[in-house]
Amino acid sequence: MRLWGGRFGDDGPDARMADFTRSIEVDAELALDDIAGSIAHVRGLGRAGLLTEDEVRTLELGLVSLRDDVAAGRVTWDPALEDVHLNLETMLTERVGAVGGKLHTGRSRNDQVATDLRLWTRRAIGRLDASLLGLERALVGLAVREGDAVLPGATHIQPAQPVLFAHHLLAYVEMLERDRGRLADALARLNISPLGAGALAGAGYPLDRATTATELGFDGVTANSLDAVADRDFVVEVQAGAALAMVHLSRLAEELTWWSNPRFGWVRVADAFSTGSSMMPNKKNPDPAELVRGRAAGVIGGLTASLTLLKGLPLAYQRDLQEDKPALFAAVNVLDASLGVMAGLVETLLVDHLRMRKAAEEGYTTATALADALVRRGVPFRAAHHIVGGLVGGAEAEGIATLAALPDEAFRAALDGSDDETARSLAREKGIAGALREASTIEGSLAAADVVGGTAPARVAAALAAAKERLGA
Amino acid sequence: MRLWGGRFGDDGPDARMADFTRSIEVDAELALDDIAGSIAHVRGLGRAGLLTEDEVRTLELGLVSLRDDVAAGRVTWDPALEDVHLNLETMLTERVGAVGGKLHTGRSRNDQVATDLRLWTRRAIGRLDASLLGLERALVGLAVREGDAVLPGATHIQPAQPVLFAHHLLAYVEMLERDRGRLADALARLNISPLGAGALAGAGYPLDRATTATELGFDGVTANSLDAVADRDFVVEVQAGAALAMVHLSRLAEELTWWSNPRFGWVRVADAFSTGSSMMPNKKNPDPAELVRGRAAGVIGGLTASLTLLKGLPLAYQRDLQEDKPALFAAVNVLDASLGVMAGLVETLLVDHLRMRKAAEEGYTTATALADALVRRGVPFRAAHHIVGGLVGGAEAEGIATLAALPDEAFRAALDGSDDETARSLAREKGIAGALREASTIEGSLAAADVVGGTAPARVAAALAAAKERLGA
Amino acid sequence: MRLWGGRFGDDGPDARMADFTRSIEVDAELALDDIAGSIAHVRGLGRAGLLTEDEVRTLELGLVSLRDDVAAGRVTWDPALEDVHLNLETMLTERVGAVGGKLHTGRSRNDQVATDLRLWTRRAIGRLDASLLGLERALVGLAVREGDAVLPGATHIQPAQPVLFAHHLLAYVEMLERDRGRLADALARLNISPLGAGALAGAGYPLDRATTATELGFDGVTANSLDAVADRDFVVEVQAGAALAMVHLSRLAEELTWWSNPRFGWVRVADAFSTGSSMMPNKKNPDPAELVRGRAAGVIGGLTASLTLLKGLPLAYQRDLQEDKPALFAAVNVLDASLGVMAGLVETLLVDHLRMRKAAEEGYTTATALADALVRRGVPFRAAHHIVGGLVGGAEAEGIATLAALPDEAFRAALDGSDDETARSLAREKGIAGALREASTIEGSLAAADVVGGTAPARVAAALAAAKERLGA
Amino acid sequence: MRLWGGRFGDDGPDARMADFTRSIEVDAELALDDIAGSIAHVRGLGRAGLLTEDEVRTLELGLVSLRDDVAAGRVTWDPALEDVHLNLETMLTERVGAVGGKLHTGRSRNDQVATDLRLWTRRAIGRLDASLLGLERALVGLAVREGDAVLPGATHIQPAQPVLFAHHLLAYVEMLERDRGRLADALARLNISPLGAGALAGAGYPLDRATTATELGFDGVTANSLDAVADRDFVVEVQAGAALAMVHLSRLAEELTWWSNPRFGWVRVADAFSTGSSMMPNKKNPDPAELVRGRAAGVIGGLTASLTLLKGLPLAYQRDLQEDKPALFAAVNVLDASLGVMAGLVETLLVDHLRMRKAAEEGYTTATALADALVRRGVPFRAAHHIVGGLVGGAEAEGIATLAALPDEAFRAALDGSDDETARSLAREKGIAGALREASTIEGSLAAADVVGGTAPARVAAALAAAKERLGA
Repeated sequence: MRLWGGRFGDDGPDARMADFTRSIEVDAELALDDIAGSIAHVRGLGRAGLLTEDEVRTLELGLVSLRDDVAAGRVTWDPALEDVHLNLETMLTERVGAVGGKLHTGRSRNDQVATDLRLWTRRAIGRLDASLLGLERALVGLAVREGDAVLPGATHIQPAQPVLFAHHLLAYVEMLERDRGRLADALARLNISPLGAGALAGAGYPLDRATTATELGFDGVTANSLDAVADRDFVVEVQAGAALAMVHLSRLAEELTWWSNPRFGWVRVADAFSTGSSMMPNKKNPDPAELVRGRAAGVIGGLTASLTLLKGLPLAYQRDLQEDKPALFAAVNVLDASLGVMAGLVETLLVDHLRMRKAAEEGYTTATALADALVRRGVPFRAAHHIVGGLVGGAEAEGIATLAALPDEAFRAALDGSDDETARSLAREKGIAGALREASTIEGSLAAADVVGGTAPARVAAALAAAKERLGA
Repeated sequence: MRLWGGRFGDDGPDARMADFTRSIEVDAELALDDIAGSIAHVRGLGRAGLLTEDEVRTLELGLVSLRDDVAAGRVTWDPALEDVHLNLETMLTERVGAVGGKLHTGRSRNDQVATDLRLWTRRAIGRLDASLLGLERALVGLAVREGDAVLPGATHIQPAQPVLFAHHLLAYVEMLERDRGRLADALARLNISPLGAGALAGAGYPLDRATTATELGFDGVTANSLDAVADRDFVVEVQAGAALAMVHLSRLAEELTWWSNPRFGWVRVADAFSTGSSMMPNKKNPDPAELVRGRAAGVIGGLTASLTLLKGLPLAYQRDLQEDKPALFAAVNVLDASLGVMAGLVETLLVDHLRMRKAAEEGYTTATALADALVRRGVPFRAAHHIVGGLVGGAEAEGIATLAALPDEAFRAALDGSDDETARSLAREKGIAGALREASTIEGSLAAADVVGGTAPARVAAALAAAKERLGA
Repeated sequence: MRLWGGRFGDDGPDARMADFTRSIEVDAELALDDIAGSIAHVRGLGRAGLLTEDEVRTLELGLVSLRDDVAAGRVTWDPALEDVHLNLETMLTERVGAVGGKLHTGRSRNDQVATDLRLWTRRAIGRLDASLLGLERALVGLAVREGDAVLPGATHIQPAQPVLFAHHLLAYVEMLERDRGRLADALARLNISPLGAGALAGAGYPLDRATTATELGFDGVTANSLDAVADRDFVVEVQAGAALAMVHLSRLAEELTWWSNPRFGWVRVADAFSTGSSMMPNKKNPDPAELVRGRAAGVIGGLTASLTLLKGLPLAYQRDLQEDKPALFAAVNVLDASLGVMAGLVETLLVDHLRMRKAAEEGYTTATALADALVRRGVPFRAAHHIVGGLVGGAEAEGIATLAALPDEAFRAALDGSDDETARSLAREKGIAGALREASTIEGSLAAADVVGGTAPARVAAALAAAKERLGA
Repeated sequence: MRLWGGRFGDDGPDARMADFTRSIEVDAELALDDIAGSIAHVRGLGRAGLLTEDEVRTLELGLVSLRDDVAAGRVTWDPALEDVHLNLETMLTERVGAVGGKLHTGRSRNDQVATDLRLWTRRAIGRLDASLLGLERALVGLAVREGDAVLPGATHIQPAQPVLFAHHLLAYVEMLERDRGRLADALARLNISPLGAGALAGAGYPLDRATTATELGFDGVTANSLDAVADRDFVVEVQAGAALAMVHLSRLAEELTWWSNPRFGWVRVADAFSTGSSMMPNKKNPDPAELVRGRAAGVIGGLTASLTLLKGLPLAYQRDLQEDKPALFAAVNVLDASLGVMAGLVETLLVDHLRMRKAAEEGYTTATALADALVRRGVPFRAAHHIVGGLVGGAEAEGIATLAALPDEAFRAALDGSDDETARSLAREKGIAGALREASTIEGSLAAADVVGGTAPARVAAALAAAKERLGA
């Protein structure tokens, strides 16, 4: 049975063409949304007087029983029936008889599939939001547990300035919050009902689109029927949001991969989130992190595909749009699973405070703090920069590992040798070496970043408390 | 002169490396934003007591004079000075003397460039919003002028149902409104100040970040210094928004390209927006539309590039981030120019109502409306569909071009031959043929789509009026 | 059972992690290649004295029986065993006992999977080559059958010059030949064996890699073990070739979509390759062509994904590489199916010579031929161009549809009004109007393009004959 | 002056449209190729009798003088003349008078630009090939100089097995050789002349396309005129090759970035290829490597753009194709510059043999070699794997850093505790502990990988010698 029947010859479609155009393997995912849409549509037909009360009841009971069977996995899809819509309609008719044929009244495949996909995407965003919150909680949990560890904050992956580990983790919480915001914005834009747009011109019946939309949990109805069936902006928007979220996870994954590397040893991924090597018994790899990083590529490629798909398509519906689903479904599923596995990995992460701090002390990471201390005492920035550069060079030459380990006379000599007058007068100030050494310690460096958003312990504690409160964590 | 000086040998950078890393050709675009940021920073340093009142005044006067020269195009960039920041700093110092060196106090290149780019992007969104509104106005203007033309609404690019030309144009207004929404959401998210985040840990001075942010028109400050310098979400988000907008323009461009094709002849692009052929004197091509379609590809590719760039980058700043600008700048400039040229093309478009309507009558485009009319009279949808299919087949066989041109007996026979009882009884109803013929006219078909968002003339008029009011057009 | 055992705790992997890292759903596709590689490896171990003759026989028999079962679909994959390799190894051990454990001697998962994937890709290229040839034959068959139809060759989708339909079809044969060439080049580059590269350093046994490679049909062995396990160039190269091929198909699909549109009506897609509409009984859509166009987007996105995946990965193997397969498999399968369905569509395509020719006559498509005729008579190109431009303008104004329908005096007047002397003297030449009219006919225009690769009938006949001979069609 | 003149109104193009469609900023890059094509075309017109000998001489002299001026940078492009072709044609006519107008005889902008772009791409491939060879030589030079350093070969970025540094460098030489191969294949496919294809149907003159092609260094002529003007496969193919090459460079860049990180310290990037930090005087960053990695993203995005551009374009020429150039030019220029800067970086790289070797000894990297040694002595692979796993676990527990440092009794006990009989009997063999310890040293491990492509010193020396010979390095 094919829907359009009649006008075509009896030979039916070519097998290659049937295989090529069939979508049930992909769009079965929409089954529950399709049924939800059908139930609302049936009620709308009833309200419009296009179905009798009895017909409405019969169809609705049939659809509810079908929904239960689909939800319980008791349904087998028939590939000969091409797509999920025809499969469901056929099953329904088997259950309720000829009245099943009335379901398609006042509805086209075009507004039907647009409705299904918006319902699915809405559910997907709900799932993703919960998973994003889950990873945020895991990060905050780790920050609470181990956040006073000191990490060598890096630029160009080189130790730059010490930061609190909690501060670093909270940077990811910021990213995930933006991800939630983007998905929420997408949801606000997509949560309007295309049902009633018909094939493209608007349904030819006096349907009360608004009431049906409300029953489906939509915030309103689409304002233009052509746009309603042609629009897949929301597919792209969710994929773009998912791609950015995967980029964030890939950055965290990259860091975990290196930090758990034996040359760093700052963290240790739990066995439950590691794999070994078949040939090298000594290896332990944070494979999920590597896969998260790798799968980010697929989500980026999927976004490219969807934009490329839509480019240059005339209005309204083209069959090309059938391809809107694979990349969207993959993006949502990959992101959701990645969030879950990263949350597990973060929750069970072990942190080696000692090795991390040791690394934070290497590379003269407190040089900036020392320069800042000089500036706060009136030395111009460029002069301060030059003085500290000299101290770093000297320490390196002498094999002294940290600025805080320099002797008093090194500080004084550096000041004294400056061409800046203020610096030279500082050289004669009592206690100046001690003060500068204090500024050159890890603690001094951390404490100095005492601005909103800075890594000073009190600032980080406040940020962490705010995050805990917000997350109920 | 290189900023970091001192520790490096005297040989200076390799020429290949200097060429390779230089960015002034690209980031000169940020000059005004950089100066605006510097002025606010100078005032902040003054408030924090890190600059004297005199120093603030001197620096601010120097920066203002520099801003005027940049705005007037009186400035020459020195490639040896690598980037816009060093160029400007050097020019400033030439104007104000050594105090210019104090500008960099409490600011890193990392928070500085992040601030500049947010300011630039904010301005860009403002420009794009105006241009999006411009094209919306042009579309609404055309809809007012020529909107009562009847277009063969298409699916699969085949005539499906007649729609009002205004209805079709308003579909694009919907798309552009979503584009504005996405950019506005991006703006709300990006309009916070990274200034004061320092290199990555937070500035080492008691800077009042909030006041400086307010002076720069920001809504607040970034909450985490590491994230502040590592975040380029806003770059991707604006590119994603621009890519979708270009997709929308490409769809309109595709349609205009075909509609202005001699086989259609529904519209005619004004000479001022066409080009000819060097070899074929008879050709007239809507080149700007083709270029808009083509340039959409570049914006999609640029989005891909930016996501690929960010994937897997450890925090905080990596030099890779220098590449955040070319694709963003190109996306904004291409979209802005495309909006402008499409607005001009739409404003000057000529519409051939007659040819358009003739096309709308072909292909039995009122078949759906006829089927709907049967359903509204109680015939089940599938039976109605079958009856109309038979009428179309018959008309085609007889060479009758439209359903409305079928003789009365054709309607009656089709009803009578149905296996649906209601249909058969309708066949005997007086005036039924006339009623069905009426439903089969273009006007009947248009009028039937009388739902919110449908193409019924009254619905379209209301939508158009609302759009005019909203746009002040 | 996990391969690496021993050193890990007893809790086993977290369920999320097991789900996330499992690949059997994707890599089951490699089963036959994996078995082929194992058989050759077993023989190699025998030759190296690492297995006894008996062990070789036992393992080989076991592998052969496993191969038969896999080929016949008699095998069920166990998701708990993660990937195809462990599944097969476990099944083998169940069949042959403990000796199965020796299969992994001298082989790492890294060189094993690289070998499997090259074998799979080699087979894939074979399949694709046959399918490319299949579509070439279909195109040539159509060119033979209907190739003397005259098409309005277009630039900017506007009628430009008449071309033979066969000429147009042969343009696609050229594209497909290049596609074959690219895949053949990829094959030549990829058909070397990584087996023996071990995990990354080279196998720790005196294996004769060359003999094993020959047994597997490889042309040689990889020259560097690190590269052997890290290289996925061939994956990208085949995807790039597939993407271009899909672009070619998308161009043909786009043309068929328009040509079969009722406004053109130049071709008619057979019912077996069309679908109808659920709501509009009169519609007939070339859906496979639209899907081919749409699926090209997915293959482009897949290529993006693979390049993004590989960017910045340190040597040698990273788990990210697990993601090399989904996009490759999809690209090959989509291209193969698209070639098949397009071949069917082309083979059954109906061509309306009359409507096509009528269209070819519209739009003054012979203007170029007329200008060329003037130039061949000594009129400078610019002057000839101007004369013909005037004739076109005049014809349009008079409502004369073709240049060949212009009266003699029009030709003479146009020549006479030129500011070129040669043109003016031509005006007085006897029979000039007839000669120019002759040049302005479709046949005159076709015949004039008498260069290698031109659309002159004899040139096209020669090209078609050559293609037929090459294809044995 | 516009080429098509005549038929258009006097108002001229809209300013937005002129700005939007102008291409001189981009296609000026084609100037020398355009002139070369014109010279050959002029000669061809002479041979075909369409120009007199005098005209040929005049035009050729004019073109040669123009070429010299362009090459010397003495030419100013006029934006009002839109593109490079019209600019050059106008300049030529200023130099040689009205005969300049004859240059366009028998040539269309379509075959002209296709010819120019193929000539440009051919030159570009020549440049890239030289630069690829340059980097190969730099890598081989480094391998000769420092190649006996021992690197901890890694999978999952964790130390896996020791490899010679030369072996690792030669892996990149393999990649670059494939890059050369891909570009050479692309060149072989693209090096045919489209000149004479006209606008799309073939030139309307008896031009000897083959001779002109030979004069331009082409290997032949395109076989189908429609394909000749519509084909941009070569643009995509070169971009795909460039993208893969950039991926290779990005992998090397990533490795250099980490290896030069203080936590590794295995290599040191010369000052001439590093930059410092404006705020942190102690930083030294391998910026060019980071930029190479970042710019790879742009080349990937450009490839996406070009494929997206071409998808679904009907034959033959569309204005979209104007966008074929920016991404191609950028890909070539970025790759060429990246190869140059990476060659410089590699040539001047300092290697710390000691730290590298120390790292190679960590992580029990010789475990595989030890297991292999047991297998070579008859222990089944799984049993050997288990024995070595136990030894690693024991060593770790005892704080013994390398397997070679384990006492004799550890080896014996491990063998003795095995459930494999051969292993247990080995435990009683004299000298077995010494033999196994020997196999566990770095040198033992390296030597064991004695297969073609393996890291055994003799194998690497042979590979290096072959590379040197091939490269004449």
